[in-house]
Formats: sequence, structure tokens, C-alpha cells
Amino acid sequence: MAFDATTLTFNEKGLIPVIAQDASSHEVLMMAWMNSEAVARTLATGKVTYWSRSRSAFWIKGESSGNTQELVELRLDCDRDCLLVLVNQTGPACHTNRRSCFYTAVQNGQEVELMSPE
Amino acid sequence: MAFDATTLTFNEKGLIPVIAQDASSHEVLMMAWMNSEAVARTLATGKVTYWSRSRSAFWIKGESSGNTQELVELRLDCDRDCLLVLVNQTGPACHTNRRSCFYTAVQNGQEVELMSPE
Repeated sequence: MAFDATTLTFNEKGLIPVIAQDASSHEVLMMAWMNSEAVARTLATGKVTYWSRSRSAFWIKGESSGNTQELVELRLDCDRDCLLVLVNQTGPACHTNRRSCFYTAVQNGQEVELMSPE
Repeated sequence: MAFDATTLTFNEKGLIPVIAQDASSHEVLMMAWMNSEAVARTLATGKVTYWSRSRSAFWIKGESSGNTQELVELRLDCDRDCLLVLVNQTGPACHTNRRSCFYTAVQNGQEVELMSPE
């Protein structure tokens, strides 16, 4: 079946959550949002392109920082309301310069930092 | 710092997206939602507990199907608006009986099924 980004299930703001996972290490790097056009642009260009909710603008990941995400594969879930992108991540994915945004764990009721800025 | 679930950033419905990842294989299994109380219950019981948006009820994963998720570690992202749970998944995570909900890939513009029901 041909894929059509408009057949995904978007929320009331026209957005769908997107999980970015490192295609090699399988580390979960970040979660962000796309609208239908961002999904189409990501597939067309191979450059993972989100919708920035704070700036209300397309956000080609790494365009300003150089920390790009090259698309390896885009997957959708059973409900068509969440995406998983497997990526080749250049540099850190997180704006704090950590490899992943998920650098804080809860261990024995305490917040523990798992990784430092690169 | 002591972790307090109420300090997370929830959306306008009081929910936070949660990515479930297999702690051993690192496969991304599913994405669902928690409210503050579901986060607290997950940490207290070690049984991953979501908030079902369709049923408006707590949803102890696998309670009816037996396909439980035992919490290995809960992590939060830099913006405190997304969680990652590393889990020991019993059986398939997806209601379609597939290991992961992300069983459909987009390859050369076509939807391709990557895995079959178990």
C-alpha cells in the first residue's frame, strides 16, 4: 500500500509524536512532533524534519547546530498515531549537548544523571 | 534530588507521553500516556501503569492479557515532558499480538509489514 502521510492520526493540533532512535546503538535519543508536511519532507529529503511547537515552524534537526539526523527508516505504530524514526545521529541529539534527551533516571526515588554533556 | 511525579510537565489533559523500550533487546515497543498518579503507581509497584485515554481509567499493562511490563528503569527527558520506561516485556506488547506496535515501515513510498503476530 502506498504511504500517504495525511492518513496518519494527528492530534487536535495536527501533530503526531515522533520517537527518534539511533539506528546503530538503538538508544532512544529524543521525542518531538511532526505535522503531515513534516512527515512528507522527512521522507522526501532524508533529513528528519520536526514541527517546532515553540516557534511554530519547520525544524530541520541540526540545521543550525550541525547535529543532524539522517533518516534510515520511518515506522508507524498500530494506531497510526505515533512514529518511530531510525536515524544516523551526528553529534548529540539533546540541546544540552548530551547524546540523548533521556539522561535522567529515577533510582530509589532520586533523580540521577546518567550522562554528561559531550 | 528526590523525584516528584507532579513536577513533570503534563499536557492540557494532564498527560505525559511514555515510550516503552525493551530493556534487553532495546526494541521500542509502544508509546502510551500516563498521568501523575500513573507515574507514581508505576514506580511504587514496578508494574508499568498507563492512563487509558479511551477508557479514562488506569491501565496496568498486561493485567487482562498477561503481557505485562515489569519496570527496569524510568527516565525523563530534558524538558520533563516525555518519559522512557525500560521494561521486561512478557509476550507481545502490541494488541495485534506483535512484539512491537511499530511493525509497519515506509520503504520506497510503500507501507511494509516488518513482523507478524506471534
